[in-house]
Amino acid sequence: MRRNPHRAVYDRAAALAVLREGLVAHVGLATEAGPVVIPMLYALDGDRVLLHGSVASRLLRGAAEADVCVAVTLVDGLVLARSAYHHSMDYRSVVLFGRAVRVDDLDERRAALDRFVEHVVPGRTRDARPPSEVELRRTMVLALPVDECSLKVRTGGPVDEDVDLDLPVWAGVVPLATVAGAPVPADDLVPGVPVPDYARAWARPAAAP
Amino acid sequence: MRRNPHRAVYDRAAALAVLREGLVAHVGLATEAGPVVIPMLYALDGDRVLLHGSVASRLLRGAAEADVCVAVTLVDGLVLARSAYHHSMDYRSVVLFGRAVRVDDLDERRAALDRFVEHVVPGRTRDARPPSEVELRRTMVLALPVDECSLKVRTGGPVDEDVDLDLPVWAGVVPLATVAGAPVPADDLVPGVPVPDYARAWARPAAAP
Repeated sequence: MRRNPHRAVYDRAAALAVLREGLVAHVGLATEAGPVVIPMLYALDGDRVLLHGSVASRLLRGAAEADVCVAVTLVDGLVLARSAYHHSMDYRSVVLFGRAVRVDDLDERRAALDRFVEHVVPGRTRDARPPSEVELRRTMVLALPVDECSLKVRTGGPVDEDVDLDLPVWAGVVPLATVAGAPVPADDLVPGVPVPDYARAWARPAAAP
Repeated sequence: MRRNPHRAVYDRAAALAVLREGLVAHVGLATEAGPVVIPMLYALDGDRVLLHGSVASRLLRGAAEADVCVAVTLVDGLVLARSAYHHSMDYRSVVLFGRAVRVDDLDERRAALDRFVEHVVPGRTRDARPPSEVELRRTMVLALPVDECSLKVRTGGPVDEDVDLDLPVWAGVVPLATVAGAPVPADDLVPGVPVPDYARAWARPAAAP
């Protein structure tokens, strides 16, 4: 049963959980000069992924109304097998395919910008100054449905060849996690403003069971 | 001077330092069905990036002798500005372009497999059972020179509009890091094998100053 720890999992809820936890998406485009991959902040908004950037961004304009591929990868651990060949990683990754549609409506774009902030720091929109109309007009928002999607998950320890199991070589997993340090206030912060809980105790939403 | 914290940095040494620190690359291909992005473990080997996988992998075969784009992104912090619009991330990313060349020579492939293990867990090849010839023949290795390459770095605190600086809203950075937990031994580990230092004290190479 443990012989195939890498597996494609067709579970929409698990894919959404990975997208809720991730911070950065790698967005692939086919351009005339060849394939391009752009790291971007993203937000999960219900059952779609939102991307955004400046309306002046050539690459983002290239992604609008075009076929894109969006990958979000979480690394959970380093898998040390007795054999070099069977070294691996525990990870969860979602790869989405589809057409990125431009969000033109200004109110919808305003809601989308809230989603970006809330995706990364839940609770933050209560405090932050909301975007002005000028800022909204400067921002391009793209939406991609979580529809055609591949989820891959590897969990658990190393899977070695039977002949290697008696080797006196340590084998196991080094778990990895993204951890927040103590918040660093801005140099020009108004004196006396306390660190909010969402910054002091920042953490990603718990993984689906 | 702090008005443009996002910047493209043309510094080969800094790009190599990012590639030394990263664990996962997102590899972009142009396929007949559209753009595809694949998360992959990679290794930095001198001034080239190595990718590998099963010779049976359709996607890896598609990347061989083809134009690819390889992105490695490190997230260093969440940037909380007074305004929602100026929220950002501190990050370092390298995006490489070029042709992925297949490494055919068996000895060169053996050295490459060592590099993968050493890239992820420095010191591990001293202990792990080396790959057999059969394992090497099952493994495809691709090499991409660090040549045509874009490095982007954002560091430091939020950059707000002057009119927002007096808002009583906390602003600053939540630093993020990839941290290793206590190693978890394999269920079937030979009793008495101690946890090696490279697993107990695993950390990425320090960032370039």
